[in-house]
Amino acid sequence: MQPLTLYVLDLSRPAGDDPDAVITRREVTDAVLRTDDLGVTRGDGIFETILVHHGLPQAMDPHLDRFARSAAMMDLPVPERELWRRAVEVTAAEMAPHAPFAAVKFVMTRGVETEEIPTGFAYGFVPDDPTRARLDGIDVVLLDRGYRHDVSETSPWLLQGAKTLAYAINKAALREAARRGAHDVIFVSSDGYVLEGPNSTLIARIDSTYVTIPTSLGVLPGTTQGDVFAALDLVGAQTRVGELFPADLSRADAMWLCSSTRGAAPVRSLDGTPVAVDHDVTAMMNDALGARER
Amino acid sequence: MQPLTLYVLDLSRPAGDDPDAVITRREVTDAVLRTDDLGVTRGDGIFETILVHHGLPQAMDPHLDRFARSAAMMDLPVPERELWRRAVEVTAAEMAPHAPFAAVKFVMTRGVETEEIPTGFAYGFVPDDPTRARLDGIDVVLLDRGYRHDVSETSPWLLQGAKTLAYAINKAALREAARRGAHDVIFVSSDGYVLEGPNSTLIARIDSTYVTIPTSLGVLPGTTQGDVFAALDLVGAQTRVGELFPADLSRADAMWLCSSTRGAAPVRSLDGTPVAVDHDVTAMMNDALGARER
Repeated sequence: MQPLTLYVLDLSRPAGDDPDAVITRREVTDAVLRTDDLGVTRGDGIFETILVHHGLPQAMDPHLDRFARSAAMMDLPVPERELWRRAVEVTAAEMAPHAPFAAVKFVMTRGVETEEIPTGFAYGFVPDDPTRARLDGIDVVLLDRGYRHDVSETSPWLLQGAKTLAYAINKAALREAARRGAHDVIFVSSDGYVLEGPNSTLIARIDSTYVTIPTSLGVLPGTTQGDVFAALDLVGAQTRVGELFPADLSRADAMWLCSSTRGAAPVRSLDGTPVAVDHDVTAMMNDALGARER
Repeated sequence: MQPLTLYVLDLSRPAGDDPDAVITRREVTDAVLRTDDLGVTRGDGIFETILVHHGLPQAMDPHLDRFARSAAMMDLPVPERELWRRAVEVTAAEMAPHAPFAAVKFVMTRGVETEEIPTGFAYGFVPDDPTRARLDGIDVVLLDRGYRHDVSETSPWLLQGAKTLAYAINKAALREAARRGAHDVIFVSSDGYVLEGPNSTLIARIDSTYVTIPTSLGVLPGTTQGDVFAALDLVGAQTRVGELFPADLSRADAMWLCSSTRGAAPVRSLDGTPVAVDHDVTAMMNDALGARER
């Protein structure tokens, strides 16, 4: 997932009505970050990854909402919404010739330690082709996230629910999944609540109702899951936000992990136990995601 | 803590007997990192911070040991020990004219996503003057780390005990301490075991014995604490590695948080309750740290 296009934002002053004046195109192979950027030395920053369809960013506002929410949880400056929107748009537009489906990652760090000027950039890339995951399904393992279900309320400094750059644990969990012969992970709280994937939101179908996990448990608000629920609502399916336990997942007759770049990926096994893949509903979900205007 | 000197390591090939050939001096204000370095986008890397006294790095081997331990826990390539030693030495030597006490931070990231070549650098800086913390003591609060005491055994993907770049939570905990009017934090496990500070190792004196926490609880092996214990052993004091609970800290007649750049900082209050500062023992500890050869 080598980036193909890069824009850097000058966040030393408000962009106001002229965002283009502070957005600069760079080569993706350019070194643009100092070694003492707190994004590097502390994972001290936030990000979003947004799907791009024919050069148009998808679900932009939910991503910008979540970016602002993460900034607030991290005591970072409020991101200038229209500036970030513009940066994503210009990066996304440049991806159009590369692939019909692309993605833009956008990042704000706390910047260099002594300067208190955030660092900002957005880059475009072509994500792994999700076709196979969507058609064949993915093998998933449950892994302990280590935290109780209520830490986002009792211990907000643990930053659960903020999309920070400090993703080393998420990557380690995915390596553990690979060691177990699986593709992905669903985290479970230390006290047995089902949570989310390292990069995705869970939807489980139980007794004909599509269920996802409440953000009060410290999971991220799922931008893709939100659009999938909207599509399910349109076709009259029952949806619900509620707590789930591993025993509930054993009763589920279908499950999906939803993320911007992979869309809705059906789970075909959980901890080695086969799970039925509902190809028709999966196709409907991904068709709906692909048909979004922006 | 603006860096004053920077060296970048070329980790694309083994350095072998000629480390100087792959170590390049750069200006600290140079941008040397790409935006898609996994150290930036995922906090996916490791680091150490080492004290420098008159240009000489202190406790080099314990830091190199811990760096290698962190790399193994993160499934990163084994760091070439003599290369990193040399990089720290040249960076440290250049700090001599700036201040009698300085520090070198050295970092290895997983590199750019598609290239599998780690990124390496070392920079020198002058840390905050520790004099006042050592003399006056520091105000400390206990904060929940969220994890059980045994997660490093049950859930190694949580990377407890690895010194990773994903330090956003540690910084958030320090901001929470500041909100409570304190300088620093001692983390407590979700099941009530005393752990460590975000950047430091605890020593508590209880019933005339100096106690620190076992690494089996997922705390980092403390390089500074190790040298303080050696100094205490030399003067015939009792030392012990063992589990502590907050009730034990209420019985402690002195406590210290030990770190490379601040040395042994006595705790003068814990959650607002005054703790006696033993100035003589604190001075002995810091004198011993200052008298290390390397």
